[in-house]
Amino acid sequence: MIALLSDFQETAYAGVVKAVIYSENPKANIVDIQHNILPQNILQAAWILKTSYLFFPKKTIFVCVVDPGVGGKRKNIAIETKNYWFIGPNNGCLYEAIKQDEIKQVYEIIIKNNWLVSNTFHGRDIYAKVAGQIDQGNKKALKKIPEQELERLEFFQKEHTGQIVNIDGYGNIITNVPTLNKKEYKVSYDGMEALIDFHKKYESAEEELFLITGSNNTLEFSIKNGSALNKFEVILAKAEIGKKIKIE
Amino acid sequence: MIALLSDFQETAYAGVVKAVIYSENPKANIVDIQHNILPQNILQAAWILKTSYLFFPKKTIFVCVVDPGVGGKRKNIAIETKNYWFIGPNNGCLYEAIKQDEIKQVYEIIIKNNWLVSNTFHGRDIYAKVAGQIDQGNKKALKKIPEQELERLEFFQKEHTGQIVNIDGYGNIITNVPTLNKKEYKVSYDGMEALIDFHKKYESAEEELFLITGSNNTLEFSIKNGSALNKFEVILAKAEIGKKIKIE
Amino acid sequence: MIALLSDFQETAYAGVVKAVIYSENPKANIVDIQHNILPQNILQAAWILKTSYLFFPKKTIFVCVVDPGVGGKRKNIAIETKNYWFIGPNNGCLYEAIKQDEIKQVYEIIIKNNWLVSNTFHGRDIYAKVAGQIDQGNKKALKKIPEQELERLEFFQKEHTGQIVNIDGYGNIITNVPTLNKKEYKVSYDGMEALIDFHKKYESAEEELFLITGSNNTLEFSIKNGSALNKFEVILAKAEIGKKIKIE
Repeated sequence: MIALLSDFQETAYAGVVKAVIYSENPKANIVDIQHNILPQNILQAAWILKTSYLFFPKKTIFVCVVDPGVGGKRKNIAIETKNYWFIGPNNGCLYEAIKQDEIKQVYEIIIKNNWLVSNTFHGRDIYAKVAGQIDQGNKKALKKIPEQELERLEFFQKEHTGQIVNIDGYGNIITNVPTLNKKEYKVSYDGMEALIDFHKKYESAEEELFLITGSNNTLEFSIKNGSALNKFEVILAKAEIGKKIKIE
Repeated sequence: MIALLSDFQETAYAGVVKAVIYSENPKANIVDIQHNILPQNILQAAWILKTSYLFFPKKTIFVCVVDPGVGGKRKNIAIETKNYWFIGPNNGCLYEAIKQDEIKQVYEIIIKNNWLVSNTFHGRDIYAKVAGQIDQGNKKALKKIPEQELERLEFFQKEHTGQIVNIDGYGNIITNVPTLNKKEYKVSYDGMEALIDFHKKYESAEEELFLITGSNNTLEFSIKNGSALNKFEVILAKAEIGKKIKIE
Repeated sequence: MIALLSDFQETAYAGVVKAVIYSENPKANIVDIQHNILPQNILQAAWILKTSYLFFPKKTIFVCVVDPGVGGKRKNIAIETKNYWFIGPNNGCLYEAIKQDEIKQVYEIIIKNNWLVSNTFHGRDIYAKVAGQIDQGNKKALKKIPEQELERLEFFQKEHTGQIVNIDGYGNIITNVPTLNKKEYKVSYDGMEALIDFHKKYESAEEELFLITGSNNTLEFSIKNGSALNKFEVILAKAEIGKKIKIE
């Protein structure tokens, strides 16, 4: 199984990546994780990958194409972990997931002379091809490199201070701050402060901004039957992925 | 075959639901119906399900995750109908489809002690798992309950008065009001009235708001080579899914 | 393999098309190319099809549903080319791709008396069914017609003047004008002129509007870590698919 994560948005780019995978391996089973990662937002991609990969069957190959450095000096890499494979640019977006699953071997992808490789679309020209190959047990494009060459991107989280790591399609604002056993939290964000109620379930919440333990066991801001985005901005400040937030 | 319908929007949630299904049944064949149902809009989901399910092969399992009451008291249910299976929250979104296909047996999903179930994402933690099990003929999580426990949501339609039931990606405004053999209709909506022409085909229409028999044999508002949304609002009032409309 | 391209946007229409294909051929392998072609934009669809089809395995059947004339006099056609099949309305959207791959035989789709065909959704009622049949080697709905009956839509391109043919999800503005070996280009568009730098790779670009050779070997406007759309409008004029542009 090959799972795709990218910032392609709704365009033909994901379709063409699949076309290349099927050309390499006609029996591939391909699943979309998400293609509307904010353009070039490596942190959001890292969060989605880390909170998604564990639900996939073992041996799944994850291809992550959020690649502001495409065509530049960053290496193209593939990592075998304890249970999975990860392919993408060496820009940190894979790091949180592979660290958690345990790195077995890091590889650089070696581009053969006969590959046609553009300067703008390595998802199609490199990662799709290599994913299709690895899916068939073929590692001929891979060269072992030391783990030290890996670019590391780690979420910031220290006690009650973390980051906004995602904003979902309902307008929920998701952080990586762990839940405490409290009924009310003090939130500090972008120079502003507010007291926000916590609810265990949507059912008990009013139609006001509240905190809930999200589906990955961290705190998220929500509004029952509505989007939390506007209210969060009115009470605190504009929610932006990557910004620090303290919830205590 | 398992078909997915949700209000997840374009996020990783649909991908993770698929991951769980494949983990349960690696040979599953999964199809997306639609994931941008308006958040919490049970009526729109019910319409899409009712007008889609019949086109799928018999035995398809439909998973509908539009679930404002997630984590609350509403039951998680699975229904076997004459030709299909339906899984989702007991909030009415399945009712119009299952009623039409003929209910054979209603089940409550019984959550086992060893399942990890969040309070915010039953699509991943319950419905995906059970869909993968039913897909393999395994009903061990299901307990028969009487049909009377079903939440019933039915579209309003009495003679020429019905509801706006969907707005599609072209900006067509779709109602559940049946077509009459008329060249012009009187439309009453939100206190406003207007006379609107009917055309059998786009070809014969001008670039003005008109009525046409849509692909589910009900009346819909359209504009040739344009979106009907703005014009509808100017002539009548803002189009909203669920609102009553009379077309006679 | 069956590949889908449409202007359905994110709605249930693509899901229902797949349902019909699976009903015809339960073993079908279906891939989405793109479903948010601008409504009725045949030119954009033609570009996406032309630049995507070659990456798919041979024998892939492409279904293109961008169909402003649905229900009208235009024929429903299927074309066998040297390596692929193409199905859609005879409105030109298939022409650039089939011309490039080499036309073997043009067919009209003959609608049988027992098909239920709406006036608004031939993707579901005709193309999906026929795609499923051709996928199994069944041509019983096809009638040979002369190649001369094909509607021809060709991109305009003469020396350094071409068209804007696509705008992608990053906000890149894609033309069909070939790259020259220059460091700076004079761009003429909609009565405006500007000098725009060329960069071989994103890496060397500043965060200013620049030209790069895109993934289909034509010139495209881009901004490093940003969307080129606004800047293009400020410097030249609003970018619109189909409009002529000179880059020399």
